[in-house]
Amino acid sequence: MTGQLFIIGLGPGPDCWLVPEARDALAQADALIGYQPYTDRVPARAGLERFSSDNRVELDRARHALELAQTGRTVAVVSGGDAGVFGMAAAIFEAVENGDPAWRALDIRVVPGISAAMAAAARLGAPLGHDFCVMSLSDNLKPWEVVAKRLAAAAQADFVIALYNPASKARPRQIFDAFDLLRAHREGATPVAFARAIGRPDERILVTDLAQADPGLVDMATLVLIGSSETRFIARPNSDPWLLTPRTYGAGR
Amino acid sequence: MTGQLFIIGLGPGPDCWLVPEARDALAQADALIGYQPYTDRVPARAGLERFSSDNRVELDRARHALELAQTGRTVAVVSGGDAGVFGMAAAIFEAVENGDPAWRALDIRVVPGISAAMAAAARLGAPLGHDFCVMSLSDNLKPWEVVAKRLAAAAQADFVIALYNPASKARPRQIFDAFDLLRAHREGATPVAFARAIGRPDERILVTDLAQADPGLVDMATLVLIGSSETRFIARPNSDPWLLTPRTYGAGR
Repeated sequence: MTGQLFIIGLGPGPDCWLVPEARDALAQADALIGYQPYTDRVPARAGLERFSSDNRVELDRARHALELAQTGRTVAVVSGGDAGVFGMAAAIFEAVENGDPAWRALDIRVVPGISAAMAAAARLGAPLGHDFCVMSLSDNLKPWEVVAKRLAAAAQADFVIALYNPASKARPRQIFDAFDLLRAHREGATPVAFARAIGRPDERILVTDLAQADPGLVDMATLVLIGSSETRFIARPNSDPWLLTPRTYGAGR
Repeated sequence: MTGQLFIIGLGPGPDCWLVPEARDALAQADALIGYQPYTDRVPARAGLERFSSDNRVELDRARHALELAQTGRTVAVVSGGDAGVFGMAAAIFEAVENGDPAWRALDIRVVPGISAAMAAAARLGAPLGHDFCVMSLSDNLKPWEVVAKRLAAAAQADFVIALYNPASKARPRQIFDAFDLLRAHREGATPVAFARAIGRPDERILVTDLAQADPGLVDMATLVLIGSSETRFIARPNSDPWLLTPRTYGAGR
């Protein structure tokens, strides 16, 4: 008898952004596994055993989930946002690749979620209305030279750029380096947004531009959006301006 | 009295991927506006007036929605996937930018949805586990030279690439040109997926590689994913292999 493994993106936070497939999978599970801030979002109930862990132990967590599923359990591994975007999906399949060959026969199902870039974009207007890229700024898992090369390529290709994991206590300076690099490629008037903890009680959005943006305000819970050369502000009364990246490119040239 | 305008991403298709916020907004609306295949997904009910339109009239549709909201209606404009990603959000804010200044005072709320790239990734394993970019391949709204330049930049930066709108009856050849270009930058063994109509009854997924991929199989309903140099297959019994782009970059070099 083998069990089932759901890899679930819980979205940015509120229940209004949790897809029904995720809710149903959580209702079926008898084991819940994840980084504690995410497992804390899932209400306790009889029959659901909880295994919460610290950050940075993704592979241990993944192997544990696979082992439990192998014994016949119905396991829910949870991430914030979309588990496929810098979440637990990659960690699980890395563990499968290097683990017990029997794990390849398990019923593993990824449940998509609302990722931070999409939630932030929804709050801001339409900044992702044209081509964009999604990058993790952390150099824990790749050399900083790769990050810098990608930022430069993204700037030259004029993608809107969404930055995940922009800063942490251990990496406070990289977001400054990233902004220095981007300022060499894009105009100071380029719209920028810092979208922190979107959908949660401590949500905070700052709309600014590349020249004025202060990277010191960015933390691990912040999604950073940098506009393309065509992204613009739409002023409105009594509120921050909306951000718009128009569908048409090059019309004003 | 002014109304309210919801811009709603319905997700790829099935109700299990429709976020509760979208369901609630649709329940409040008294006017439903969108391209017919999307409005058709919303069940009829008393008190919900429907305005379905053809493709390619996004700006007319946007202005109509804004006018109705201005008269006090509660309007739901619907897109497939995420309305912020090649959907109606940009069209609405383009109309706001160039329209009646009073529209800037309207209560406009974007409701995020599951975009095709995330849904396809969930079916495939973890192809978006590392940095990626999202591009529309259509040259209806931008010059083909911009598309080609971005594809080359994305290939050089070694992003996983998600292509929306890869082909249509009017543009059958661009996806061939795109593959020719990508084959000049990436190895033939690079994993590729064609994920068509994900979540709908006619869902069809083809997992292949860059050398063998036949762009002739791609249509408007297909999301095309091209792996990075680190994306790989994980073979499994009796099924297509999973796709994995590991979190760590450059480890095997």
